[in-house]
Amino acid sequence: MVIKEGHPFSPTFQGIHHIYANKKATHGLNSGEYLDGAVLIFDTITSIDRKDSIEEGVRKHVAVMHKDAKKFAKTGGWGFEWFNGNSKSEKMVEDGGKACFDCHVSEKTRGYVFSRLRK
Amino acid sequence: MVIKEGHPFSPTFQGIHHIYANKKATHGLNSGEYLDGAVLIFDTITSIDRKDSIEEGVRKHVAVMHKDAKKFAKTGGWGFEWFNGNSKSEKMVEDGGKACFDCHVSEKTRGYVFSRLRK
Repeated sequence: MVIKEGHPFSPTFQGIHHIYANKKATHGLNSGEYLDGAVLIFDTITSIDRKDSIEEGVRKHVAVMHKDAKKFAKTGGWGFEWFNGNSKSEKMVEDGGKACFDCHVSEKTRGYVFSRLRK
Repeated sequence: MVIKEGHPFSPTFQGIHHIYANKKATHGLNSGEYLDGAVLIFDTITSIDRKDSIEEGVRKHVAVMHKDAKKFAKTGGWGFEWFNGNSKSEKMVEDGGKACFDCHVSEKTRGYVFSRLRK
């Protein structure tokens, strides 16, 4: 998916998106129920707009959802992390995922996950 | 990557592209040398152009490159396959990969592979 300028989630999420899911998360995407250990990665890459193509530039940020119902009970059982660029340590989430969850809560019936499998 | 209308590879390859590589192919993308067993998948998905986003529609076709230097000596050591839509049997290549290779030959110094790793 590509988020263009003018999208409600732009400029934070403007760019090319890849979603990666481990097996437990794939099961959840199918069923709507996520078991502990499910991990979803939301990778946002700068998009380079050319006349006849859109290419990938540098990575903007990487968001992670990690299911652990007990540990993250306050945020729907999901731990939220968000890393700047290619960094594995520079975090963009400082509130324990509260702001993430406040938006994801709209997807409660789908396990708090916005992503959908391609049909 | 997204190929738009007007691109030299459009309309065949117009859409959202994903490239998947196994470990041997990832090694090749880094080194330019591909060992037997390297597999690259080139997945083309219809793009749905919206005002503020581009979303994925149905799969158009899946192209496969499989390295076996002896078996596919006539086409640079690569076996080329191309499947229609989500089919695992309906082939779009009937010439043993000759037409594919005729274009890929321009990338001889990179092991006949067009794809580049994101920097």
